[in-house]
Amino acid sequence: MLCQQPRLRSLARLWRRRLHTDLDVQHFASIVGPSGVLTEPADLEPFNTDWMGKYKGASRLALRPGSTQEVSRILAHCNERRLPVVPQGGNTGLVGGSVPVGDEIVLSLSRMNRVISLDEHAGNLVCEAGCVLETLQEHAWARGYTMPLDLGAKGSCQIGGNIATNAGGLRYLRYGSLHGTVLGLEVVLADGTVLDSLTALRKDNTGYDLKQLFIGAEGTLGVITACALALPRAPQSVQLAFLGVDSYEAVLRTFGAARRELGEVLSAIEFLDRESFELVTAPPQPTATDGGGGGGGGGGGARRPLETSCRHYMLIELSGSDAGHDGEKLGRFLEALLADGTVVDGTIAHDSAQSAAIWRVREGITGALGRAGAVYKYDVSIPLHELYDLVEDTRARLAPLGAEVTGFGHLGDGNLHLNVYTPGVFEQRADVLGAIEPFVYEWVAARRGSISAEHGIGVMKPNYLHMSKAPPMIELMRGVKALLDPHNILNPGKVLPPAESASET
Amino acid sequence: MLCQQPRLRSLARLWRRRLHTDLDVQHFASIVGPSGVLTEPADLEPFNTDWMGKYKGASRLALRPGSTQEVSRILAHCNERRLPVVPQGGNTGLVGGSVPVGDEIVLSLSRMNRVISLDEHAGNLVCEAGCVLETLQEHAWARGYTMPLDLGAKGSCQIGGNIATNAGGLRYLRYGSLHGTVLGLEVVLADGTVLDSLTALRKDNTGYDLKQLFIGAEGTLGVITACALALPRAPQSVQLAFLGVDSYEAVLRTFGAARRELGEVLSAIEFLDRESFELVTAPPQPTATDGGGGGGGGGGGARRPLETSCRHYMLIELSGSDAGHDGEKLGRFLEALLADGTVVDGTIAHDSAQSAAIWRVREGITGALGRAGAVYKYDVSIPLHELYDLVEDTRARLAPLGAEVTGFGHLGDGNLHLNVYTPGVFEQRADVLGAIEPFVYEWVAARRGSISAEHGIGVMKPNYLHMSKAPPMIELMRGVKALLDPHNILNPGKVLPPAESASET
Repeated sequence: MLCQQPRLRSLARLWRRRLHTDLDVQHFASIVGPSGVLTEPADLEPFNTDWMGKYKGASRLALRPGSTQEVSRILAHCNERRLPVVPQGGNTGLVGGSVPVGDEIVLSLSRMNRVISLDEHAGNLVCEAGCVLETLQEHAWARGYTMPLDLGAKGSCQIGGNIATNAGGLRYLRYGSLHGTVLGLEVVLADGTVLDSLTALRKDNTGYDLKQLFIGAEGTLGVITACALALPRAPQSVQLAFLGVDSYEAVLRTFGAARRELGEVLSAIEFLDRESFELVTAPPQPTATDGGGGGGGGGGGARRPLETSCRHYMLIELSGSDAGHDGEKLGRFLEALLADGTVVDGTIAHDSAQSAAIWRVREGITGALGRAGAVYKYDVSIPLHELYDLVEDTRARLAPLGAEVTGFGHLGDGNLHLNVYTPGVFEQRADVLGAIEPFVYEWVAARRGSISAEHGIGVMKPNYLHMSKAPPMIELMRGVKALLDPHNILNPGKVLPPAESASET
Repeated sequence: MLCQQPRLRSLARLWRRRLHTDLDVQHFASIVGPSGVLTEPADLEPFNTDWMGKYKGASRLALRPGSTQEVSRILAHCNERRLPVVPQGGNTGLVGGSVPVGDEIVLSLSRMNRVISLDEHAGNLVCEAGCVLETLQEHAWARGYTMPLDLGAKGSCQIGGNIATNAGGLRYLRYGSLHGTVLGLEVVLADGTVLDSLTALRKDNTGYDLKQLFIGAEGTLGVITACALALPRAPQSVQLAFLGVDSYEAVLRTFGAARRELGEVLSAIEFLDRESFELVTAPPQPTATDGGGGGGGGGGGARRPLETSCRHYMLIELSGSDAGHDGEKLGRFLEALLADGTVVDGTIAHDSAQSAAIWRVREGITGALGRAGAVYKYDVSIPLHELYDLVEDTRARLAPLGAEVTGFGHLGDGNLHLNVYTPGVFEQRADVLGAIEPFVYEWVAARRGSISAEHGIGVMKPNYLHMSKAPPMIELMRGVKALLDPHNILNPGKVLPPAESASET
């Protein structure tokens, strides 16, 4: 666990003043029933801690409502009593947005996990917010559809949390942003008002599209209780290639060719540099354990899809309706790039086991980093042609400190995951952190990039928000927050930096 | 021209009190230069009238700024002086949203028509709001990209207006909503503040995505001055089929098969009923002129792509990267549907002239209706399986009055254009209007449809907004409007119905 920053400690102290009482707990029990009220420290532990063990709250109360009406009654009471609330889905975020800072009440959506309908003509899904992404994927798949997003955390993340954090993930390139695929939302506002825009219509231009406000607001403007999503048809064929190239310039040329030649069947373009590849394919070191300060340098143990050592590697995935056509396009594409020397080496997965092995290279990097040393994680968007410059500049800056730098990510979206780690050293080092921050944020801001491409702001980055948003925009955010949550009960301390003259009511 | 409704007359009276003076005009001339200030009635005529001749304002002043800074200084002055402003792009809307109601100042974006950049790696376009859609399409096409939207009005509509009205159009099925494809906006707020979120990043999760507020707000929350858009790659092959089927049930089966079999290459599915088809393919009557009360029943004169008479017709368009693959998919798809009797007759365009002739059938309906009689136009979203029921129910209801009913639209989006017309009678009839409204709106509301799928609310439908939006949502819209435009200077009288206790400041 990282040290809490001074600002967070002071916020936590503030909220400790506004304690809920036994009378409040009794009132909540009358709404959700005794089984929906958790007060035992052991029961509260998973609600108070994020999955990385990095953020930790001190909540003494978690509520598990079973319906929108129950959420509404809970929030109306909290608003009246000025009790702060943290909405929580699968609690799989990376910036501490779903974990209490102090003694907020945790509002878990897990029990609200009904699929309401899937219109088989139009492919419009309506479901409650607590549905697990993977469960929805299976439900959709069985009916010929697919979810428009896919994440590593799909087995536990919930669709309400996905929408509240505007999750991106692996299929963003193909199916686009949730701002486009969410058709409708049901949201409970801070005062308990139910805002119902749960229409499963592809087009609706009747006034302001206010559901958009809640997509990516990280639970600070309202609690999403249900959603309607536009689902694409499930592909009938999925094919995967793994390529090696010798320069970032060749990565860009390959990317351009893929968009041009593979166009409509392209479903993912991921990239990883040699440093990521070597780490994830190095033999695992059984003595090194997560955060244990063990041997260090322990690898990911993934099988190498290519033996040739290259500067960068790329995964290119196609999803389409005709395996023959897609295979022909992929073969032709790869042949041309090998012939002109853009691609040094490449392989195509011939079955789902080979596909899975290739995906393990890409998806295993995070785990391999964790076993190798203390990790400093950044998730940024940068104009594509400068994307790898950040990795090289950071690497040059950190080398004297003995820290290693890896770059990988969702190339198709201009989204780089920059990871710095200290081999064999599992404690965070102030000198390393000081060399990275604010350097990385300033580097990104100077190129008008985003300091948080997909992870969000949460409790980790409010003080850096100004690096990606100008003062008038932050001021307008505050105006919207004050309009929707005037008593600041919803996920306080997240997203927005504290106002200069903040006064709690 | 339709009669102005009493409410509009009273609003117009209200604004007439807040007249701009010669001093204001001098001040504006000092900002935009004398050539940017129009005050002659003849010069103002096109700014005061919509293209249908249905809505008419009485503005005495139009301003043509050349930069965001000029827009900012104009709005700061108008806000200070409480002078109402109508932002205007290509003025091609269908609900009177871009035309003054009384003596508002027209703020034309036409001079702000620079393309700022097109990142050829990522396909991100940045341009000013006054760029004409077709000009952008040509610019994109020359660089291997395509615009994510296409409309009949593309030759004159402007991208700022497209975004302000959240335009849908013909490629929505393939490329999705502007809420997904707009990456960034530059917006001038009512008080002149420039809100800059003009980042051309595919992913950016740094706080609330407030640019979304301005997409579809019809210029009532701010003036869009520039935008960044994600462009898809231009297709290398476009193919088109025209099919005839004998029931709406067969339309749905064909739609399902197209989504399943053609998946990723499908770029449009349009449908029209027999009534639309007969009208648009009937011989033109040269004596009948638009609104002229001439002979009546004049047809569209489009060539019939099929000789077989069917209950409904469909256009299916594919856009892809390989003509051979796409042609094979389309041929196989059509063969199977002809074999099992779902499709009665069908043809595939073999060159661009045949394609254009087929598109004229679909796109000529609006013009043919105008020549046939007075038209009552509705643009609704309804769950797909009930979509044609509205046409049949309206037809049965209107038959005794001698009015005809046609149904056509963007089937892929559940978007029906319902048009009622009175053959040979070019004056609006109160009995016909009374039989349609509020019947159609109530019918749609009962099925949780949208009373405005893509046209917007403008000045035409604020009083029906409650048919698609619940009271808490309308109240929140008012809150957002008050936050962003406290003195109600931006496009007043549009989108929101007048508040019970409205008091102008």
